[in-house]
Amino acid sequence: MAPPTLLMDLYELTMLAGYFEQGIHERHATFDLYFREIPFHSGYAVAAGLDPALDYLEALRFDEGDLDYLESIHLFSGPFLAYLSSLRFRGTVTAAPEGTLVFPHEPIVTVEGPLAQAQVVETALLNIVNFQTLIATKASRVVRAAAPAKVVEFGARRAQGPDGALSATRAAAVGGVLTTSHLWAGKTFGLPVTGTQAHSWVMSFPCEIEAFRAYAAAFPDTCVLLVDTYDTLKHGIPNAIAIAKELESKGHKLSGVRIDSGDLAYLSREARRLLDEAELGYVKILASNELDEHVIQSIRMEGGRVDLYGVGTRLSTGAGTHGGALGGVYKLVRIDEEPKIKVSGDPSKSTLPGRKRVWRVTRPDGVFEMDVIALDGEAVGPGDEVFDPEHPLRHSSIPEDTKLEDLRSVAMEKGIRKVGSPALPAIAKRASRELGCLPEGTLRFMNPHRYRVSLSPRLHELRMRLIEEARSG
Amino acid sequence: MAPPTLLMDLYELTMLAGYFEQGIHERHATFDLYFREIPFHSGYAVAAGLDPALDYLEALRFDEGDLDYLESIHLFSGPFLAYLSSLRFRGTVTAAPEGTLVFPHEPIVTVEGPLAQAQVVETALLNIVNFQTLIATKASRVVRAAAPAKVVEFGARRAQGPDGALSATRAAAVGGVLTTSHLWAGKTFGLPVTGTQAHSWVMSFPCEIEAFRAYAAAFPDTCVLLVDTYDTLKHGIPNAIAIAKELESKGHKLSGVRIDSGDLAYLSREARRLLDEAELGYVKILASNELDEHVIQSIRMEGGRVDLYGVGTRLSTGAGTHGGALGGVYKLVRIDEEPKIKVSGDPSKSTLPGRKRVWRVTRPDGVFEMDVIALDGEAVGPGDEVFDPEHPLRHSSIPEDTKLEDLRSVAMEKGIRKVGSPALPAIAKRASRELGCLPEGTLRFMNPHRYRVSLSPRLHELRMRLIEEARSG
Repeated sequence: MAPPTLLMDLYELTMLAGYFEQGIHERHATFDLYFREIPFHSGYAVAAGLDPALDYLEALRFDEGDLDYLESIHLFSGPFLAYLSSLRFRGTVTAAPEGTLVFPHEPIVTVEGPLAQAQVVETALLNIVNFQTLIATKASRVVRAAAPAKVVEFGARRAQGPDGALSATRAAAVGGVLTTSHLWAGKTFGLPVTGTQAHSWVMSFPCEIEAFRAYAAAFPDTCVLLVDTYDTLKHGIPNAIAIAKELESKGHKLSGVRIDSGDLAYLSREARRLLDEAELGYVKILASNELDEHVIQSIRMEGGRVDLYGVGTRLSTGAGTHGGALGGVYKLVRIDEEPKIKVSGDPSKSTLPGRKRVWRVTRPDGVFEMDVIALDGEAVGPGDEVFDPEHPLRHSSIPEDTKLEDLRSVAMEKGIRKVGSPALPAIAKRASRELGCLPEGTLRFMNPHRYRVSLSPRLHELRMRLIEEARSG
Repeated sequence: MAPPTLLMDLYELTMLAGYFEQGIHERHATFDLYFREIPFHSGYAVAAGLDPALDYLEALRFDEGDLDYLESIHLFSGPFLAYLSSLRFRGTVTAAPEGTLVFPHEPIVTVEGPLAQAQVVETALLNIVNFQTLIATKASRVVRAAAPAKVVEFGARRAQGPDGALSATRAAAVGGVLTTSHLWAGKTFGLPVTGTQAHSWVMSFPCEIEAFRAYAAAFPDTCVLLVDTYDTLKHGIPNAIAIAKELESKGHKLSGVRIDSGDLAYLSREARRLLDEAELGYVKILASNELDEHVIQSIRMEGGRVDLYGVGTRLSTGAGTHGGALGGVYKLVRIDEEPKIKVSGDPSKSTLPGRKRVWRVTRPDGVFEMDVIALDGEAVGPGDEVFDPEHPLRHSSIPEDTKLEDLRSVAMEKGIRKVGSPALPAIAKRASRELGCLPEGTLRFMNPHRYRVSLSPRLHELRMRLIEEARSG
């Protein structure tokens, strides 16, 4: 199930060939994977993708077919191809567990190992972690907007390719959407699947009530009827009520009705009223049609009565102003003992050099106060002055009475996995627990409070010094 | 390589179970796949995805693992699961060849066959055709903005999952981006691959010129140098010029320089000037960094001197205001001999009933005049009155002196493929040839002229009559 080794850009291998030729491919390197902006104007991101990323690292090997292909492009020498054939990933990965809430500038994943090994996995790690984190974050927002109503993922038909659909369902589960319409994903990840019928079902029968009756006969205990093929309130709901009564007379219960078009707030309110008047308070209302967290919020503000939201396209493609991608990057931060920096015209975009740790600072009441990125081995604690990574002149201090915990742990050591594959519901629970600890303003859907991420004194000092050195030549 | 059979939503199977129980699963059904809006505010879309969709149809079968899984969810009867185990796709597929320019309301793919077979493939066909068409369309726009400069696809690290990257590269090639950085895609589709180095390469050496020299030593004839790690004009270009001279002295030539940040119009102009002053007119300039058709257009309008554009995220995810998805739908249009319609509160969203053909109307000079959707068997020709599908009162006529050609052909008959898998460059050529026949205003990037798609008299009449019947109950 691991993605193929060749999920990489050609430049990984041209660089490797160069390192190999220079004899520096075994130098000890450290790379950080992080992002600079959270998509969806969200106040937080939900880390995801570590487990499939570790699968890739474990399985990495260039097989005969790969080597034949690489030979065929006439760029690489025989000795280099022989080197590739024995290449395995034996590096160490330190990462935030999936489901951890993460923020800009924090290394979510750090890879250490021989330069060639740490370099060659760049594209695959970015591909996996970027997309999983994007969708887990979107899913978390959708789930929060809908709660206590539940969310079902419906996106397979608009997802970005077959595996786009599979990966999206996994990430949606990390974000708390634990039910899907997609069978391949249900089978692969053991997630509950759900589904009703399409308009084509209703249209395959001479009239709507016959279509409903046939479906109820096939699924008397799990029947959800699609009520908007002709006219939701005039035909769909009255016909569904008639069927519900027929089911009752046979000792069954109609599970629900689904509304897939029109003004979902109004239609769900009226549908609820009609169902309740018919003493069908137990019949659930499922709504779908281009939903996302903002549409769900407005349905609720307008008094919509929806029990279950079916969310497709906008969840599975992570739609938003950022263009359907998390802009995670993978940057060299250290070679042998030497910290490295990539400077930029805009100092806030300069990388954070050196081997680092990420500390989460928690108040006595359990609320997250801030995160602090520090150098590995640096002692940090309450009272220490810390610096804003984007505005170096802005600084504050770690409040007294707080507790610091390492946000990350070693997931793989010298190529050996140190953690099992956690179940998706357990990952979702971690995210949900952490959301309960965020300062409230940070949870806002629009213009959230910016959760503070700070740099420790020694990291700040090192970064400033290296920027200065790079500038002076 | 075909996607798994279970690339389907659960409701396909609950419907199938219902049809099976009602004994109507063998009725003869016709479904159309079409979209209502073109993404990116584009004046045209490039049809793509037919070949992988046919792969799916050919390979469709529920294997033991699938059947065990379906049994485990306790929804389906033994006889139905036995029926599924022998289910194959034996339907007929009529489709626009990949690379054809297509427009709203036109059935790109029509599937005919036993109701169960035609229904069960809905999600997979939508998933494949929606995403491929989305990205082929985006790629076509990017290529046109860049021409005569070339485009390389760079998106693997930000694509939507591993296969999202693979599928996106294929679709980009349909749209004319025939070079990629992604090795898995290069190997799978036989596309040329390209790549240079990352900032980490430059940072792995004590200074930039040493990094350049080492890379040039490894690839003396294909060397492209990344010049923006420290300062593009102050360090990067002068160092690249020095290396180019060293290469010349050894009988080699520097291929190019790559600029990955900053003001690409200004930097490429200045880089060109410095290279030309050093008599290095042959050294190409490659630019990258969040490019799309609009950014490329503005670089060119500002006099940028770019020979090769590297386009990543926005190409591979089809970024745009529509949210990274083509909203294609799959609708039942006929059962046995009876045309079917799905009405909607908005008449322009009502489906087009019946088995149909799509005619492309061409002027004597070869320019496309309009497309006409007609009933199968209906004679249409110059002089006939035709109707706007979205504004039923708006009508016009097919001009005299035009020629009508069937836009689609039979791609699969009773489960047997009728067409080979065309090579990606041949598909790209078809798209490019058709672009040359579009009315010029339709090619505009913003607010293009709307290419006319009309309904034939009998189709228009049938649709109006069925809408009327549905309304009157």
